[in-house]
Amino acid sequence: MRKESTLFRCIWWTVAVTLVFLVGFIIGWFAKPSRSPGHNEETSSGRHLRDFLDEMKPDKIREHLRKFTRLPHLAGTKQNLVYAEQIKEEWLIFGLDSVEMVPYDVLLSYPNKSRPNYISVVDQLGNEVFNTSLAEPVPEGYESVSDIVPPYSAFSAKGQPEGDLVYVNYGRTEDFFQLEREMGVNVSGKIVIVRYGKIFRGNKVKNAMLAGAKGLVMFSDPADYCAPGVQPYPDGWNLPGGGAQRGNILNLNGAGDPLTPGYPAKEYTYRYDLKDAVGLPKIPVHPIGYHDAIHLLKDMGGQIPPNNWKGALNVSYRIGPGFTDDFRTRKVRLNVHTNNQVTRIYNVIGRIRGSHEPDRYVILGGHRDAWVFGGIDPMSGAAVVHETVRSAGRLLRGGWRPRRTIVFASWDAEEFGLLGSTEWAEDNAKLLQERAVAYINADSAIEGMYTLRVDCTPSLHTVVYDLTKKIASPEEGEEGVSLYESWHKRDNWTNDRDAPKISKLGSGSDFEAYFIRLGIAAGRARYTKNKKTERYSSYPVYHSVYETFEIVEKFYDPSFRKLRAVAQVRGGLVFLLAHSQLLPLDANEYAVSLKKYAESIAQLAQQHPEDMTLYGVTFDSLFSAVENFTVAARDFHERLQTLDRTDALQVRIANDQLMYLERAFIDPLGLPGRPFYRHVIFAPSSHNKYAGESFPGIYDSLFDIENSARPEKAWEEVKRQISIAAFTVHAAAMTLTPPA
Amino acid sequence: MRKESTLFRCIWWTVAVTLVFLVGFIIGWFAKPSRSPGHNEETSSGRHLRDFLDEMKPDKIREHLRKFTRLPHLAGTKQNLVYAEQIKEEWLIFGLDSVEMVPYDVLLSYPNKSRPNYISVVDQLGNEVFNTSLAEPVPEGYESVSDIVPPYSAFSAKGQPEGDLVYVNYGRTEDFFQLEREMGVNVSGKIVIVRYGKIFRGNKVKNAMLAGAKGLVMFSDPADYCAPGVQPYPDGWNLPGGGAQRGNILNLNGAGDPLTPGYPAKEYTYRYDLKDAVGLPKIPVHPIGYHDAIHLLKDMGGQIPPNNWKGALNVSYRIGPGFTDDFRTRKVRLNVHTNNQVTRIYNVIGRIRGSHEPDRYVILGGHRDAWVFGGIDPMSGAAVVHETVRSAGRLLRGGWRPRRTIVFASWDAEEFGLLGSTEWAEDNAKLLQERAVAYINADSAIEGMYTLRVDCTPSLHTVVYDLTKKIASPEEGEEGVSLYESWHKRDNWTNDRDAPKISKLGSGSDFEAYFIRLGIAAGRARYTKNKKTERYSSYPVYHSVYETFEIVEKFYDPSFRKLRAVAQVRGGLVFLLAHSQLLPLDANEYAVSLKKYAESIAQLAQQHPEDMTLYGVTFDSLFSAVENFTVAARDFHERLQTLDRTDALQVRIANDQLMYLERAFIDPLGLPGRPFYRHVIFAPSSHNKYAGESFPGIYDSLFDIENSARPEKAWEEVKRQISIAAFTVHAAAMTLTPPA
Repeated sequence: MRKESTLFRCIWWTVAVTLVFLVGFIIGWFAKPSRSPGHNEETSSGRHLRDFLDEMKPDKIREHLRKFTRLPHLAGTKQNLVYAEQIKEEWLIFGLDSVEMVPYDVLLSYPNKSRPNYISVVDQLGNEVFNTSLAEPVPEGYESVSDIVPPYSAFSAKGQPEGDLVYVNYGRTEDFFQLEREMGVNVSGKIVIVRYGKIFRGNKVKNAMLAGAKGLVMFSDPADYCAPGVQPYPDGWNLPGGGAQRGNILNLNGAGDPLTPGYPAKEYTYRYDLKDAVGLPKIPVHPIGYHDAIHLLKDMGGQIPPNNWKGALNVSYRIGPGFTDDFRTRKVRLNVHTNNQVTRIYNVIGRIRGSHEPDRYVILGGHRDAWVFGGIDPMSGAAVVHETVRSAGRLLRGGWRPRRTIVFASWDAEEFGLLGSTEWAEDNAKLLQERAVAYINADSAIEGMYTLRVDCTPSLHTVVYDLTKKIASPEEGEEGVSLYESWHKRDNWTNDRDAPKISKLGSGSDFEAYFIRLGIAAGRARYTKNKKTERYSSYPVYHSVYETFEIVEKFYDPSFRKLRAVAQVRGGLVFLLAHSQLLPLDANEYAVSLKKYAESIAQLAQQHPEDMTLYGVTFDSLFSAVENFTVAARDFHERLQTLDRTDALQVRIANDQLMYLERAFIDPLGLPGRPFYRHVIFAPSSHNKYAGESFPGIYDSLFDIENSARPEKAWEEVKRQISIAAFTVHAAAMTLTPPA
Repeated sequence: MRKESTLFRCIWWTVAVTLVFLVGFIIGWFAKPSRSPGHNEETSSGRHLRDFLDEMKPDKIREHLRKFTRLPHLAGTKQNLVYAEQIKEEWLIFGLDSVEMVPYDVLLSYPNKSRPNYISVVDQLGNEVFNTSLAEPVPEGYESVSDIVPPYSAFSAKGQPEGDLVYVNYGRTEDFFQLEREMGVNVSGKIVIVRYGKIFRGNKVKNAMLAGAKGLVMFSDPADYCAPGVQPYPDGWNLPGGGAQRGNILNLNGAGDPLTPGYPAKEYTYRYDLKDAVGLPKIPVHPIGYHDAIHLLKDMGGQIPPNNWKGALNVSYRIGPGFTDDFRTRKVRLNVHTNNQVTRIYNVIGRIRGSHEPDRYVILGGHRDAWVFGGIDPMSGAAVVHETVRSAGRLLRGGWRPRRTIVFASWDAEEFGLLGSTEWAEDNAKLLQERAVAYINADSAIEGMYTLRVDCTPSLHTVVYDLTKKIASPEEGEEGVSLYESWHKRDNWTNDRDAPKISKLGSGSDFEAYFIRLGIAAGRARYTKNKKTERYSSYPVYHSVYETFEIVEKFYDPSFRKLRAVAQVRGGLVFLLAHSQLLPLDANEYAVSLKKYAESIAQLAQQHPEDMTLYGVTFDSLFSAVENFTVAARDFHERLQTLDRTDALQVRIANDQLMYLERAFIDPLGLPGRPFYRHVIFAPSSHNKYAGESFPGIYDSLFDIENSARPEKAWEEVKRQISIAAFTVHAAAMTLTPPA
């Protein structure tokens, strides 16, 4: 008995001790955290997003904007360096891990201070009987400010060409075609006058040069730069008659600094001679306001053009060449003495080091240089970036740190051809190609008072919609309404789906090198006008001296709540891209867009059904590639559902596939004739840099059909471009399939 | 008392239970494995490497070689597809996770079966008084084999040009310079005859074309294709007098399929017209053996050249033009009827999925297509790959799986311009760029009986040395001696360090697209001759019908231990690259090489000290960049010492930096005039594709100085190239710095 009892006890104890041990073991096992943050972190991430968005304050944005718009700060000037240093200092105070100034020496262009630029009407003796104004009337409060650069066309050729004027509407490709083919006017050796608007001014210059003009005048017509019922500044936000639009007239096609295409403009970098520089115009060009324009236009002779060539001035818009018989002997003379000059510029680059993946970069970049005060362009954007940095700094102090590295950039010399951002992209091309998750652009945050405008790559659609549902509408009387709803209500003119419209990216701002050259997912957001009712281009005072702090404060956004909403969109995107465990990029959306673009380009080709049969042109390979991509994207996102989120490597691998998706659309050989535009799906239109073209290689080759002396050769190029597009989409699909 | 006792007991039990629980908890905590494999796995990795190397057997390699050399298997023929299918089947049986056939439709070139190619001596009536042979005498045992393609120059232009012969030694750039400048002979309109050897035959063709020749004859001189004291095959391994060297004569510069440069040659891919194809020669070209050559050379007139132009034939090697006076009216006529033809080729791609990082690829690739039997080229290499696959399969069955994915490739149509490998690289460019760790090449495994030869990127130096210390010497009487020691003893002619020589990669085999276009770390290894004593080019029977299984078995490697050693080097590199937790790539070695190359190119420029002063040429920026790189590399490897190897993300991040180091040397703009050669540090020489040139952009621009009518323009290009090189090295250094 006793023995048995002892045995029994022994067994009992053994079992008990074992059980307790096992319980301990099991609890220990499960108590130990896995390496990778899982869903819990996602929840805390949501709280941090809220904190981040709520921290951004309208009054702070007002302060930032006020501070950085007191003085003109043209690229390459002392004042723009002063602002750079101030931004660096404040970003450090806000709490960024590091901030550095990154200089480059690039080609800029300034008026000659002792020989002003202007346009004259000269009589037969060569006497100047009319001269355009040398400067814009300075707005109240800024009378004592020096260093306001007068309106000019940066990088214009020097010279004093003289000749008859020809009016060519907006100077678009189709305007010149119409002029030459329908109106029978040849501009060779003439001076062309066009109105600003519709397309990038550099394209107007290129068209005028190709047509043989020896000079170009660009003017702001009230039809394009005045909203009905609005007063000129300072009583309203319309362009005054003495105002004129500055701007560069380069055709860089993404090259960056004209002297160092493809490489950063460092001290040791080889520079081409000016004669070999990229994109410089060969003719003198000068911009004027509408008061001056009247004097040039009013006496013009020649045909009266169709109504869509007529602006809102009280003149007949006759196309010339030259003046009416009464003034037949008078000519127009351009006087342009602008100098090109290699000048030092400064980007400010700030960083928050990522906690888990310091080698993954999310970039928020916008320019700092302004033509004058930059009240809207770019400081409304720069103020928003500043507030984003401040808010991120607050969270950092509270112990938060983003999973990935965030890079903040204050670019220089955007106005001279996206130079600061492009040189930095060239300088860091390898790092960016391998590590950049996304680039969010931060140029002007407001160009109208109507609603949100977003242009972005298709893979960002979903996160834009999701995010804007978490942001409050800035509109009066829309308390409790989300930005998404507010935007949707005003901008529901898409047929595709029940969602507000998101557009393709074009160019004309600093995202270009990141998106079109390097293939980094990119997007931009701003407050905009109502495109259905507001016909004017960009906004009336664009690039004039009237872009002041006051125009924003008095007219565009008195509460600064619109700018706050834009800050929350831009900043929120950066937050989600930098901090979500799984990247919020949506390959399915890319598939949807590709399908749409393929259908649309095929339809365009179908305007030549006989040719297509004759030359054996088919889009089958492209449609098949898109179908293939669609399946790959769907399967990829399905696999994501079952991804083990506690496995850091598996998560990284999936994220790498998402990150590199945009890169898959890059062709290192570039688009025909445009080596720095490498994105096969998106590029700025060859006819208007501001607009985005889908399948640009195919589009341009189709465009050439009309004007080709040898259509069979042109169609060969179409076939080649379709083949490249199909291959690229197939290759992109491959990046989404399981990696082995 | 009782209460106290109860209390005491309670406490005792609580403490005991708690202790047991804690012990359990602690053991549970520590028993749970961390996600990332650490040092333990490295140890087991060492054991697996041993198993992997030991599994490779000489007899198996002999079997593989025997099996795949019975029949001719020219690219594009039925038999080469049969071998492809057999390889696929066997790789599956060996245990690969997947094997697929990947076809492309590329431009190949075959003799016209009904109109043979040959060269004639014709008299003044046009009668052929001598014709070269139409085929090589077939070796014993192969008499009944059909489909032996006769010697020809693939992609030769068709035609029957007739003219005087001019002998231009090896047809090198310097030979043509010497001919024109020192000997005063113009080859315009003549037929050039050159001996094979020293440089890639395509470069000879290009030089002849540039000099204006209307046809080219290439012959194998015994001085270059017979070793002293060795009998012609089958009694020895020398080239018989009736043997001739086949080979393509393209100047592709890395383009791959001549009709689809930059894109994979798929069914839907756009193909250029033949007239726009890349790299096709414009003149007829034909190769002959030395028996035939004697008949063309013996009666030649003109000057007697310097001794280094003379081969080992019993003729005077007079340079012409034309024959001696006795035969003045005789001309030489080429008869070439070779056809270009788009033909389907097949790569075989096998995979072992990586356990931890399936999205990281280590590639072992070599070609399968042969000019005839391919006894050496390429099947000695293919047999080695086959054995590597078999050994890896054995380990897989034992439960092992490499950390990263291994890709095995049997390329097609290497002999026609590296077509199979280049098309696959084009097809998979995005995946490879983002995911490929290294490419190990597996062409001919033996070209001599002396010792090991390794050409590789500098970052592989260290792992090559480490690995070869773990492999046994295959030499008789060197039991217990490592391959490293054996190699070092025979090849210790380097001044740099106490280690066997490793050379730069040139081109002429399938690594080209991976290394020079995509920037993937690459290397090759084979058994070679003693370069100090053996003067002949490549090996005597190269590309002749005498490359049989028997020549390897009887002469080159009767024990098959040399081939086993090569298998162990190639396979061992693949193993270490695929399975080491930290990639065995050494950035410090790259720094050492860059310094050496920079010094050497600067020294070359210093041959023009006055010009350098006059045009302000300096290498300071390059040296400064190299210094910068050296520091970055050193710091990087120092940081690696303290890396937390249990943190999977940190390990991945460091490995990514190592993987992308090679990529950092790629310039997407390519080298001047050679868009598919994009590696700024290494490219095939413009004068000999087989040789590797360091800083090729600078080298080529310096070369042009001599021949430039406008030296100031040529020096501008030198400066530009120095600037590009400096930038690239700086950018590479950046990739090694901490990522944020």
